[in-house]
Amino acid sequence: MIYGGIEAGGTKWVCATGTGPDDLQEFVTFPTTDPAETIARAAAFFTAKGDVAAIGIGSFGPIDVRRVSPTWGRITTTPKPGWADTDVVSTLGAALGLPLAFDTDVNAAALGEYRWGAAAGLETFCYVTVGTGIGGGGMANGRVMHGLLHPEFGHMRIPHDRARDPFEGVCPYHGNCFEGLASGDAIRSRWGHPPEALDDERVWLLEAEYLALGLVNVICALSPQRIVIGGGVMKESSLLPLVRRRVAELIAGYLSAPELAEAIDCYIVAPALGDRAGVLGSFELARMAVDGQPS
Amino acid sequence: MIYGGIEAGGTKWVCATGTGPDDLQEFVTFPTTDPAETIARAAAFFTAKGDVAAIGIGSFGPIDVRRVSPTWGRITTTPKPGWADTDVVSTLGAALGLPLAFDTDVNAAALGEYRWGAAAGLETFCYVTVGTGIGGGGMANGRVMHGLLHPEFGHMRIPHDRARDPFEGVCPYHGNCFEGLASGDAIRSRWGHPPEALDDERVWLLEAEYLALGLVNVICALSPQRIVIGGGVMKESSLLPLVRRRVAELIAGYLSAPELAEAIDCYIVAPALGDRAGVLGSFELARMAVDGQPS
Repeated sequence: MIYGGIEAGGTKWVCATGTGPDDLQEFVTFPTTDPAETIARAAAFFTAKGDVAAIGIGSFGPIDVRRVSPTWGRITTTPKPGWADTDVVSTLGAALGLPLAFDTDVNAAALGEYRWGAAAGLETFCYVTVGTGIGGGGMANGRVMHGLLHPEFGHMRIPHDRARDPFEGVCPYHGNCFEGLASGDAIRSRWGHPPEALDDERVWLLEAEYLALGLVNVICALSPQRIVIGGGVMKESSLLPLVRRRVAELIAGYLSAPELAEAIDCYIVAPALGDRAGVLGSFELARMAVDGQPS
Repeated sequence: MIYGGIEAGGTKWVCATGTGPDDLQEFVTFPTTDPAETIARAAAFFTAKGDVAAIGIGSFGPIDVRRVSPTWGRITTTPKPGWADTDVVSTLGAALGLPLAFDTDVNAAALGEYRWGAAAGLETFCYVTVGTGIGGGGMANGRVMHGLLHPEFGHMRIPHDRARDPFEGVCPYHGNCFEGLASGDAIRSRWGHPPEALDDERVWLLEAEYLALGLVNVICALSPQRIVIGGGVMKESSLLPLVRRRVAELIAGYLSAPELAEAIDCYIVAPALGDRAGVLGSFELARMAVDGQPS
């Protein structure tokens, strides 16, 4: 029995079949265009793969993850043009006739890291992605984090020192929320170049400041046993060490744990599955739809 | 079988025996002085109560809640003079010879509200107390929130508009963190009077702003199904409606749920058990120490 996985991102979609990191059988990536075309390409990838038992979808959001809701399976209030109120699950379900599981891209990636990666064995941890936007999710007490809706780390409010950074922020809902100040879009808009084209130390010190403020808030709200942080912006190699150092400084010894001081290098970590955490975690979503809870 | 409960606060301790809100058998309150005297008074209350099966302790913090830790049962890095590294559980255990359960005051209050109050039937919710300090905890996926340590909502960082509020904040570790700006101590220090002596609208509009920013961060981090908010500062009757309105404004329609808009009066609520949530929840901690997980 094999599974299908879709990492439905705001920039690109990844579709794959297999059972895990050592058994990734087919794999395709294509850009996110309009909903009809993008979903049709995903459906075409999975059509006639008769050995797929179920498909897991880890989607950009916000999405409706409440199985009892009449709008379950939809992308809801996203600011991404054309994508608000897109019914991903019904459209794919009608095309494929397979069981579908649906969660956020970050919860899917968290599941991947839990099953095969940097969060193995942990009951309560977070997964944060810093890319075009900022997303966050994870597991609490051994199960994926859902509640009223799902976590939306990117829209926390953090301190914004306008003397140091007069930039207003890019979030269309909140301006200078965490995502508005620290996402890849914010970096591009503030400095006039995409993150990968910037090697000015000021860029990365400011970015580390915002990321550390956001992570401190996650630590104070959830007390995760570990934070896995990935996404395109984290590919700048100087950034993770700066973030770790600044988180420890901001905690300032108040929370008494070596993980928040001398052992912080093992507490805030890169995804062990790298860019494949999301699509591999989608296999795990699919497996859970067939078998039940996480193994 | 009856239980003992201790609400071990930074200002006062409450000790009680019973089984629930309709069966509160004995009840005593005394001020928090130094650790030796305060713990001895609690021990004296429970001595020779032969029908008590176990005692639950909901303590101010930070505390060590990890059962496998050599410092389990201690108050750790509290700024409260004389109380850092106080071994509450060993001292009481030696005096009483009863099973003891130990958690934060806010997790205990959350358990009380889950068993008998405003959080009945919810799997994921938060309890926030705004008193001398600000604490937060709750349940995630049906179990009390623990992880690396325990939640510490009060030490999240929130925006601080120094043009509107030049006050530096009172947190000895972080200055203007959430607790540093919005706790009862912060109000007293900023305005020169205790909260109960202040009826200037500016006081409560500013307080509502900070509380709303903190709650928005909790909502984005955890997506709780409900937030129960209590503590001495919330006794100002104008405050809760102001906080609700400001939370809805700050969410700005991004999270698509009636609970964060027109139904917010049922989403951010006062404790149904009032000031007794903590000590009643400590009964539930005690019961769980004997019986297992929440009923």
